[in-house]
Amino acid sequence: MEGMLTINNVWMMICTALVFFMHLGFALLEIGLTRQKNTINILFKNLFIITTGLLLYCLVGFNLMYPGEFNGFFGFAGFGLDSPMLNGGLDLSYNEGYSYWTDFLFQGMFAATAATIVSGAVAERMKLQSFFIFVILYVGIVYPIAGSWKWGGGFLDELGFYDFAGSTLVHSVGGWAALVAIWLLGARIGKFRDGKIYAFPGHNMAYATAGVIILWLGWFGFNGGSVLSADPAATSLVLVTTCLAAAAGGISSFLFSTFLYKNYDITMFLNGILGGLVGITAGADVMSPLDAILIGLIAGGIIVGGVALIDRLRLDDPVGAVTVHLICGIWGTLAVGIFGSLAGWDQFLYQLIGIGSYAAICLVGSFLIFYPLKLSIGLRVSSREETDGLDIHEHGMEAYPDFGLKQP
Amino acid sequence: MEGMLTINNVWMMICTALVFFMHLGFALLEIGLTRQKNTINILFKNLFIITTGLLLYCLVGFNLMYPGEFNGFFGFAGFGLDSPMLNGGLDLSYNEGYSYWTDFLFQGMFAATAATIVSGAVAERMKLQSFFIFVILYVGIVYPIAGSWKWGGGFLDELGFYDFAGSTLVHSVGGWAALVAIWLLGARIGKFRDGKIYAFPGHNMAYATAGVIILWLGWFGFNGGSVLSADPAATSLVLVTTCLAAAAGGISSFLFSTFLYKNYDITMFLNGILGGLVGITAGADVMSPLDAILIGLIAGGIIVGGVALIDRLRLDDPVGAVTVHLICGIWGTLAVGIFGSLAGWDQFLYQLIGIGSYAAICLVGSFLIFYPLKLSIGLRVSSREETDGLDIHEHGMEAYPDFGLKQP
Amino acid sequence: MEGMLTINNVWMMICTALVFFMHLGFALLEIGLTRQKNTINILFKNLFIITTGLLLYCLVGFNLMYPGEFNGFFGFAGFGLDSPMLNGGLDLSYNEGYSYWTDFLFQGMFAATAATIVSGAVAERMKLQSFFIFVILYVGIVYPIAGSWKWGGGFLDELGFYDFAGSTLVHSVGGWAALVAIWLLGARIGKFRDGKIYAFPGHNMAYATAGVIILWLGWFGFNGGSVLSADPAATSLVLVTTCLAAAAGGISSFLFSTFLYKNYDITMFLNGILGGLVGITAGADVMSPLDAILIGLIAGGIIVGGVALIDRLRLDDPVGAVTVHLICGIWGTLAVGIFGSLAGWDQFLYQLIGIGSYAAICLVGSFLIFYPLKLSIGLRVSSREETDGLDIHEHGMEAYPDFGLKQP
Repeated sequence: MEGMLTINNVWMMICTALVFFMHLGFALLEIGLTRQKNTINILFKNLFIITTGLLLYCLVGFNLMYPGEFNGFFGFAGFGLDSPMLNGGLDLSYNEGYSYWTDFLFQGMFAATAATIVSGAVAERMKLQSFFIFVILYVGIVYPIAGSWKWGGGFLDELGFYDFAGSTLVHSVGGWAALVAIWLLGARIGKFRDGKIYAFPGHNMAYATAGVIILWLGWFGFNGGSVLSADPAATSLVLVTTCLAAAAGGISSFLFSTFLYKNYDITMFLNGILGGLVGITAGADVMSPLDAILIGLIAGGIIVGGVALIDRLRLDDPVGAVTVHLICGIWGTLAVGIFGSLAGWDQFLYQLIGIGSYAAICLVGSFLIFYPLKLSIGLRVSSREETDGLDIHEHGMEAYPDFGLKQP
Repeated sequence: MEGMLTINNVWMMICTALVFFMHLGFALLEIGLTRQKNTINILFKNLFIITTGLLLYCLVGFNLMYPGEFNGFFGFAGFGLDSPMLNGGLDLSYNEGYSYWTDFLFQGMFAATAATIVSGAVAERMKLQSFFIFVILYVGIVYPIAGSWKWGGGFLDELGFYDFAGSTLVHSVGGWAALVAIWLLGARIGKFRDGKIYAFPGHNMAYATAGVIILWLGWFGFNGGSVLSADPAATSLVLVTTCLAAAAGGISSFLFSTFLYKNYDITMFLNGILGGLVGITAGADVMSPLDAILIGLIAGGIIVGGVALIDRLRLDDPVGAVTVHLICGIWGTLAVGIFGSLAGWDQFLYQLIGIGSYAAICLVGSFLIFYPLKLSIGLRVSSREETDGLDIHEHGMEAYPDFGLKQP
Repeated sequence: MEGMLTINNVWMMICTALVFFMHLGFALLEIGLTRQKNTINILFKNLFIITTGLLLYCLVGFNLMYPGEFNGFFGFAGFGLDSPMLNGGLDLSYNEGYSYWTDFLFQGMFAATAATIVSGAVAERMKLQSFFIFVILYVGIVYPIAGSWKWGGGFLDELGFYDFAGSTLVHSVGGWAALVAIWLLGARIGKFRDGKIYAFPGHNMAYATAGVIILWLGWFGFNGGSVLSADPAATSLVLVTTCLAAAAGGISSFLFSTFLYKNYDITMFLNGILGGLVGITAGADVMSPLDAILIGLIAGGIIVGGVALIDRLRLDDPVGAVTVHLICGIWGTLAVGIFGSLAGWDQFLYQLIGIGSYAAICLVGSFLIFYPLKLSIGLRVSSREETDGLDIHEHGMEAYPDFGLKQP
């Protein structure tokens, strides 16, 4: 029925817009949790990711990820530009849930997200040029190939691995690369001194909070759109599990961190919400509201422990990206085997295999990108640039030049 | 027809997302209109309200408000978690306008709003712990019971009282509690000195303005979703009356305040827009565009007068919450008896009875929460904490720690 | 079929909300790219534009633009308030794509946009009162009459001129007035001194970036809604071409400016994205993705060249509004004759005629508004006010009064 295609497509377009909007959430969260002197640098990276990500997904990613003829690991079916849809028509037999173009744009918005996660982890010290090269290779090649294993109908899909909206395929894919990056990059100057850990407070908690609320809003589209239709039972359940997990994650992180540190720490609250969102993403469509709350509560605890663990490992992750996206991504993926309608030992095993497979491709893939960069043009800015701030050196300006002075 | 359920449900999910997004609007407006030193505290409260509000509505609120077997004043039908929908199915006979889960989430987003209104009024001096307890009791119990009187099919609904989207049920319910709170709390230190009123300028007009524009956007969902279906005649009329009242409210406040104070006061413009929005909310579906403009123009005038009145009463309401949500909420509720298709003496009387009933439950309910808190753990932070700012004392950090200094 | 009307109407309402949200994007972009001391002034102007714009479009604009009986150049069919729809009914025969009210609100949101463009160009030195008068006359009269030539079925529509969503009808209409305004106003004090051009860095790059991302999001509605139905083939293609042109515009501007100035200039990246968006707007529904990328790439180059050109002409355009909206608007309009399914010499000629016609009405119309204002009450604030900032003089407050001091 034409009406159903139209309504499904409307829902998918709205979800696409919401996932696009997440890029503002990521940008505000990242600059909010880092220092003022690197603000423009982070914003610039985010603009690069959105624009390049879309163009790359159009040129190669879409067809790498959803190959016409899939061969098990890789797939090529021409380039996105060379599609049968180019003549303007809409192939109604393509899919009853949405048009070819909506499919492309929705998936394209996802692609850029993985790189954004890395951007937060490497903030305040990574060379812009090296980051650009990483984005092009990781978003252009690693992400779509990895994605094809499950969403492109690859071997993990045939096996029974389940990842509804990308706890693993998007968040862990970004998180693994973030882990490799911060290991190769090293910590920011002064972060670990004399055996102690120094907190570098973020420069704007209003931005960070706005970022998280925008990300939560975007998750309505991220998870809601992953139903791939407007089916009322599935979409509305997904929104409920998504929101309850976010709420539970935030409350849990808030309570754990207040109990441990005797302080109402807003960054823990924020990251707890994100942890809950990442945690529910793999199984948002197969959980009851109670399951979702439990997944979120555990995710919130993981956030508090994970942030402390990363610090103890002397890894410097300015925004907590590895904890939020990698550790909670793993948790969410495992949770599909523990809670909800798919729970069971078999499923738990499939989830473990999936997590391991993605660990392998992402660790290898990101190392093969970052390490040659480190040996050649270098990953890191000079200590002078880092101390002064990347904005002045790489961008020739400050983010807020009027502070404390009267301009002409 | 399945297609109509799908499209109605899509509209309701979008409206739910928009109402969720209002929480960013409230947060930005509140921090924008208050001082920098209390920014994290306000953001923290808002995060608490969203997360706790949703969880509470899931646990008790939804069933308190929409009881299966209503007994006139109270209703219990198990807890939201123990619903017949838990097994994943969607009962198509539930409602032709939306699914059970969408209904829950949309109403749950409303529930948290009432507490947010109070948050603005008590800003900069209330103890976080006391505020948390208030939120749990007010959002968990008072709001849904009060709501059930009308939207749950209670006695005010049977009487003929009309409140389309919550000028009274949401905004005044928040506003009455705000009034009780600021009366019990007292003014901020230095607000009223030597018989004079001192203005404490908000610390960021960009945040405040962004907050109001986001709130206006959210009102597309707040009022548009209150149609409870995507009916094209009703939804599109509601969006038009909503936007015209907002526009008229803003212009009216701007003109009145400019005339009186010879100054282009942006906070008056902003609150005028909100006053227009609150004012149209009770009757957005029964007004013509011209009615909406008149309601907005009057609301804008009320804002200018109300803010002066609250000051003269020596009540300290940092963001004008009582004027915007309570006084304009009352105005909007009365306007249903004066303008539009329901206008008439009978209706006006029903509206008065409704307003009086909500005044009673909210004044009593909030007093029964706040007064024992005042006598026990106290409502107010120490004068030292208030002077230094709540961010440093309760949260151990500043919202913008980089101002005027170079970090390591 | 009633279902199709409902779904089309839902899409159009969402697009209306997104176009409304663009006003936040414009506001943040404008304040971000200008100096702190004029922030409230710019926000105030933007609030005035949204509210007045909607009211004016209701009072006169809608009927001027879409006249019942069109006479070639002008049309009057009563006022928007006096419509056959006032009695609450929805005339299903009105349009199969959306209701009468949705039509009004969507078009009304467009109307205000033209004035917003001018606001950015005249920032930091124009008298608020004169700007208000300009807005009332330009949005109330010039915009709808000009719009009626094409979208109201006027002579340019009959000729074959094509402008899908307003590269010319909205963006150039604003851009021409911006050009006249900055020519009559003159440059900000100190901008051009001793034969040199001085850059006045904007005061907040985070706001500017957030503004552009919000504008991009809004463009989903601006272009997506211009399909005037939810047709899945057309709407989803339009979103793809819109996003690809934005991405290509940003990347192109970034690469050109980095090559020329050896600096990663974020304002160029931002304006490149906007240039791509304005450029695709005239033909978003008739381009292939490859066409869209090419149009965006060229628009990005135009941005870099245009900004330099405006500077060289000693015109002072603080936010680059003329380059983004006028020059890229012309480019996008011409592109319809060069790329895509309408391309051809005939079409190119129609596009030229359209551009020329709009240049004529807008240059004459805006001159007839601005010049008498200049001779009477004046366009420009005093040099004292300009130096101190408009916020202190016109609004009696600062945007961020807490900077560097502890408030009471």
